[in-house]
Amino acid sequence: MTQSYPTTVRTAGTRHRERLAYDRNAVHAVLDEAVHCHVGFVVDGEPVVLPQLHARVGDDLYLHGSTGARALRAARDGGLPVCVTVTLVDGLVLARSAFHHSINYRAVVVHGRAEEVTDPEVKQAALQALVEGIVPGRSAEVRGPTSKELAATTVLRLALVEASIKVRTGPPVDDDADLTLPYWAGVLPLSPPKAGTPQPAPDLSAGIAAPAHVTAWTRG
Amino acid sequence: MTQSYPTTVRTAGTRHRERLAYDRNAVHAVLDEAVHCHVGFVVDGEPVVLPQLHARVGDDLYLHGSTGARALRAARDGGLPVCVTVTLVDGLVLARSAFHHSINYRAVVVHGRAEEVTDPEVKQAALQALVEGIVPGRSAEVRGPTSKELAATTVLRLALVEASIKVRTGPPVDDDADLTLPYWAGVLPLSPPKAGTPQPAPDLSAGIAAPAHVTAWTRG
Repeated sequence: MTQSYPTTVRTAGTRHRERLAYDRNAVHAVLDEAVHCHVGFVVDGEPVVLPQLHARVGDDLYLHGSTGARALRAARDGGLPVCVTVTLVDGLVLARSAFHHSINYRAVVVHGRAEEVTDPEVKQAALQALVEGIVPGRSAEVRGPTSKELAATTVLRLALVEASIKVRTGPPVDDDADLTLPYWAGVLPLSPPKAGTPQPAPDLSAGIAAPAHVTAWTRG
Repeated sequence: MTQSYPTTVRTAGTRHRERLAYDRNAVHAVLDEAVHCHVGFVVDGEPVVLPQLHARVGDDLYLHGSTGARALRAARDGGLPVCVTVTLVDGLVLARSAFHHSINYRAVVVHGRAEEVTDPEVKQAALQALVEGIVPGRSAEVRGPTSKELAATTVLRLALVEASIKVRTGPPVDDDADLTLPYWAGVLPLSPPKAGTPQPAPDLSAGIAAPAHVTAWTRG
């Protein structure tokens, strides 16, 4: 297994190429940290972008969420061309000039054809990876899916073949002439999402405390 | 001004229609809370999704970020068909069954044609709205853009005409037969991004403290 994804026409980028990379581990880390992704596809020649949940298993990305009937039909019939993008915002970059304001971020873009997962065993493993990816430890403390539930769930698979990561880090870069302006400049770091106090379901049976996989949930 | 966006073929939705709404204020609130959006467009018949920054001014959405030369050319020449999606994840919904796991979220989807802003005054106002939208108070404490910087900055405008919001809130909904299972069920709320300690630029002049718009930054 190579350590990098190949650079293609679609992943070569046109601006700030110095921020682009194709490192497999870096791509995987961003996919694994994010709770959700945005999936783009084309319907009637026009773009559609919807939030979905995802789980990475090796070099496969599993997607779960609604796409509409027509996109799903395409996914069944040869594959749905998609662009899956995951963005983590790490900080606000405040320069002395409005022009040099920026964002510190890590963004992964994956191109490819998403295909519907039909094999029940693969689908079950993918759904388990989805639950586990979002709440590690959870899948051992739930009722697993019935065959009817499995059939009612749509999972798409996208092979990680054409993927890139774009990263900006570090302080603002102001023009030399602006360095002595009397304005504060720097980075305001933003935290990954933090969990609040777990809210038990109103119909939760008495005596069931929130388990560690809930109370100790962290991300990033 | 009507209080709702019209329901169209593209915004009617196919699943969980009870979660869909078209209320202008609700759409605006999500757009205003989010720091970034995902912009989808079509290149060579295939989808591209990129993160961008956005600012809403009335019923206009201004977009700032790279799209590549070809998409920009389309934006100049009659408008670039785009789908702009903003997703805020509010919580993890943990059911007793794997099948009923979900996410509490607010997602806005806007369809339309994005056009390049060429009028320098409109562009300047849009860029100010972008800075102000992300860091309220900031635009009064920066050097504003020169005409050369304005010319070097791309801003697209998307009229909010075809927009919808999809929201899930509340506890998990388990099947009756699962209610007595010995598994914890409930919602783990996720906070909006929180600011950490401001990191002054290494080349910041001595004696400039972080202003209130930095130290008191909050979101959501």
